[in-house]
Amino acid sequence: MDGFMFEAIKQAEMALQLGEVPVGAVVVKNNNIISRAYNLKETLKDSTAHAEILAIRSASKVVKNWRLKDCSMYVTLEPCPMCAGAILQCRISRLYIGTFDPVMGACGSVVNILQNNFLNHWIDIQWLYNNECSNMLKKFFKNRR
Amino acid sequence: MDGFMFEAIKQAEMALQLGEVPVGAVVVKNNNIISRAYNLKETLKDSTAHAEILAIRSASKVVKNWRLKDCSMYVTLEPCPMCAGAILQCRISRLYIGTFDPVMGACGSVVNILQNNFLNHWIDIQWLYNNECSNMLKKFFKNRR
Repeated sequence: MDGFMFEAIKQAEMALQLGEVPVGAVVVKNNNIISRAYNLKETLKDSTAHAEILAIRSASKVVKNWRLKDCSMYVTLEPCPMCAGAILQCRISRLYIGTFDPVMGACGSVVNILQNNFLNHWIDIQWLYNNECSNMLKKFFKNRR
Repeated sequence: MDGFMFEAIKQAEMALQLGEVPVGAVVVKNNNIISRAYNLKETLKDSTAHAEILAIRSASKVVKNWRLKDCSMYVTLEPCPMCAGAILQCRISRLYIGTFDPVMGACGSVVNILQNNFLNHWIDIQWLYNNECSNMLKKFFKNRR
């Protein structure tokens, strides 16, 4: 479990090297990583190019299906509403989160899209509270100011 | 205004021809349509290939910026949480909606991502209640059963 988050952190580091907000994600099926991605919003000039969306699209290509059944995602930062909504759409069954996002977090911090009685799906969330995930973000935003 | 929704409906009809849930969207800037898209989820085997996401990505290519400043979107069906979240991310300023979605609507019907005091942005929503938008969806789901 921690090994998969470590792989997501490695992805976030790739984003950092490009000056992107450091967020990384991996999709896991049967204990194997089937896709890896990092935030490329500025590089691709595409507001939808968050790590989670890119990881989902890449995983769907691997399994040749939009349904990511029995898949988990490991992501270094709590998904925003767009990404939480994408996680609902693709039917990922469990989400492991490295650290929370007090501004846009849509898995409990600001709103909760994944565990909402009125929406159609309910996703299992595991908080890992990984220091590396929060430290790299703090450092990134400190250096930016 | 109604003319732009008519263009979005034409996009939804393209989705219908492919057997996709008929949803279409256009992005408008300075009274001109800068992108058009329709739902391609099944065709592309990509759960993120909703009309709104494809229209946003395409519009960003046109303006060469992830920020869709001073842009409006016309969409035939109320966006889901993923698409409402994408509309927040790209800074679209106004959203025109053709009909509501009682199952996954994230602009007021089930949840409201676009007008939420706790999130960082607030998007203006205009409901057009266009009969064609609701009729084509009703017909699609009736034929499917």
